[in-house]
Amino acid sequence: MSVRARERVRSVDLVPSVLAGKIAPIARLLSRAEQGADEVLPALEEIYRHAGKAHVVGITGVPGSGKSTLLSKLAIRLRGLERRVGIVAVDPTSPFSGGSILGDRIRMNDLSGDPDIFIRSMATRGSLGGLARATLDAVDILDAAGYDPVLIETVGVGQDEVEVVQAAHSTVVVSAPGLGDDIQAVKAGVLEIADIHVVSKYDRADANRTITDLKGMLTLGAHAGTGAHAQSSPQATWKTPVVATSAASGEGIDELVDQIDAHRTFLRESGTLRQRQRQIAQRRLLKAAEDLLRDEFMRQQEGDMARIISDMIDREVHPSAAARQLIELVRKAGDR
Amino acid sequence: MSVRARERVRSVDLVPSVLAGKIAPIARLLSRAEQGADEVLPALEEIYRHAGKAHVVGITGVPGSGKSTLLSKLAIRLRGLERRVGIVAVDPTSPFSGGSILGDRIRMNDLSGDPDIFIRSMATRGSLGGLARATLDAVDILDAAGYDPVLIETVGVGQDEVEVVQAAHSTVVVSAPGLGDDIQAVKAGVLEIADIHVVSKYDRADANRTITDLKGMLTLGAHAGTGAHAQSSPQATWKTPVVATSAASGEGIDELVDQIDAHRTFLRESGTLRQRQRQIAQRRLLKAAEDLLRDEFMRQQEGDMARIISDMIDREVHPSAAARQLIELVRKAGDR
Repeated sequence: MSVRARERVRSVDLVPSVLAGKIAPIARLLSRAEQGADEVLPALEEIYRHAGKAHVVGITGVPGSGKSTLLSKLAIRLRGLERRVGIVAVDPTSPFSGGSILGDRIRMNDLSGDPDIFIRSMATRGSLGGLARATLDAVDILDAAGYDPVLIETVGVGQDEVEVVQAAHSTVVVSAPGLGDDIQAVKAGVLEIADIHVVSKYDRADANRTITDLKGMLTLGAHAGTGAHAQSSPQATWKTPVVATSAASGEGIDELVDQIDAHRTFLRESGTLRQRQRQIAQRRLLKAAEDLLRDEFMRQQEGDMARIISDMIDREVHPSAAARQLIELVRKAGDR
Repeated sequence: MSVRARERVRSVDLVPSVLAGKIAPIARLLSRAEQGADEVLPALEEIYRHAGKAHVVGITGVPGSGKSTLLSKLAIRLRGLERRVGIVAVDPTSPFSGGSILGDRIRMNDLSGDPDIFIRSMATRGSLGGLARATLDAVDILDAAGYDPVLIETVGVGQDEVEVVQAAHSTVVVSAPGLGDDIQAVKAGVLEIADIHVVSKYDRADANRTITDLKGMLTLGAHAGTGAHAQSSPQATWKTPVVATSAASGEGIDELVDQIDAHRTFLRESGTLRQRQRQIAQRRLLKAAEDLLRDEFMRQQEGDMARIISDMIDREVHPSAAARQLIELVRKAGDR
């Protein structure tokens, strides 16, 4: 079959091969999902029906926290346990996403060539808004293809990226000692979304101070209970652990695997899994609706939309009233 | 009139006093707008019709850049020119927003007691999404009340805060020497949205390096032309100036006032004002539509919305299809 002919394969026809775990079709569907053409939607709908089995783990932390290194060590360890590991990297500073320094590249190479580790990096430039959608589609594809767990790596700053992490069942927040006095998770606004904290670079002398600071902060937070994922019922309480890891010695990686598994078990057995699934679905639904509005908006630039905007500029219509007109337009477009 | 009776005044009945520039009604309407109850909407619609006259200037920069100090010096200078200055502060680290250190508090006090400077700080905690809407409503209120210019102070990180700055006609990005090697505007992702750059703390020895770096970066950017506000027509080109200021000596404040006025004149005379108004209106429209969806979503938790989410969790409906159902629900709610 020629390259041209292969390119003409409909996305929806790739789905059976994706579900069978075949590498090339998975890669092709991932690319098409990222481009986000309408043609791929029936395929994604089919994929979505088959997804929902994998444990989705978000791994976040500021640049320099050592999360990329941790991620590669974690993936290697999970492979040692015979698990098929999917990785979606949305961190522009990550070696998985096309960064960075030579050392990181070598670590990434530790993972390449293994068909049971699938690494997909997402472009973060120029796709604000679309990024969250494309990332979650990618997670669905790897999930449906039988990868479990699926790890999402993202830098823990920016609303879009927090949204991505909030799509995970379990969220690991990585902090490193010596990146300034403040707790990085607090600075990045992700303290509350952590199910598991990791302090990386445990071989460093100042790591213990970071661990102590973090535990102190968590004790305060336990009383506040304002986290997006805060557990409301007292009988189902997850005590956020702080795991110290060292990429050099490999220390703490096993404990991290255990804690991720423990959190998965906790979600299932406490009945909070359904609750978290609802939160994830709610956010995703809202995001999809916003994306629809934005897309329709872009298509409508020359038509009714231009009139609505002119009315706004001329101060004849308030933005809220204009927004109702926009929603009406989008609905009509959906009826066509 | 008792306090109880005063509280029962309808928001829409406050509008004439607001338009007349009366302080207490302005403050009251601002509070109600921030709370965002449905009751205030008719008042905001009326306010919106009377707004659109003020020059809206966004002032942004990372914490520590000295933008709060600059803002107070700028406001005092503008008062010296007999202008009525409105300030909306959405920076949680700003003394205007209830920060910070004693020195900043004293600077803020320089401005208090003058009825022709109105300072409004917006709560940024717990109002993600609602923040941008509330801030723009506050700008409208001060605008309609006759304040001109209206200055928006925001920390230049986070999607929500960038959105706020993008609602300004002119955007001032403040950088300080010695906050790390990188250009702060680049780090914060706001280089492209600057109409005017300020390098604060010009009395510092390393200020010249920051100025040189920034000018070099701008020369590169002039060729790239990727900014949200990039001017497309060659005959209407704004050359982004770099203004050096010193809060200690007051140096550069007059030049900053001149540059802000020059940019206002440029927008008017080049015909790009309308273009920028379109961009601002577009963003605000989209944001308002998203807020409507979110609000309706919150109201619908127990009804049809819960069913849609359950269908998603059960993998029966893809998020995109579910989003169309959500938009249909919101539209129906609007018809009621």
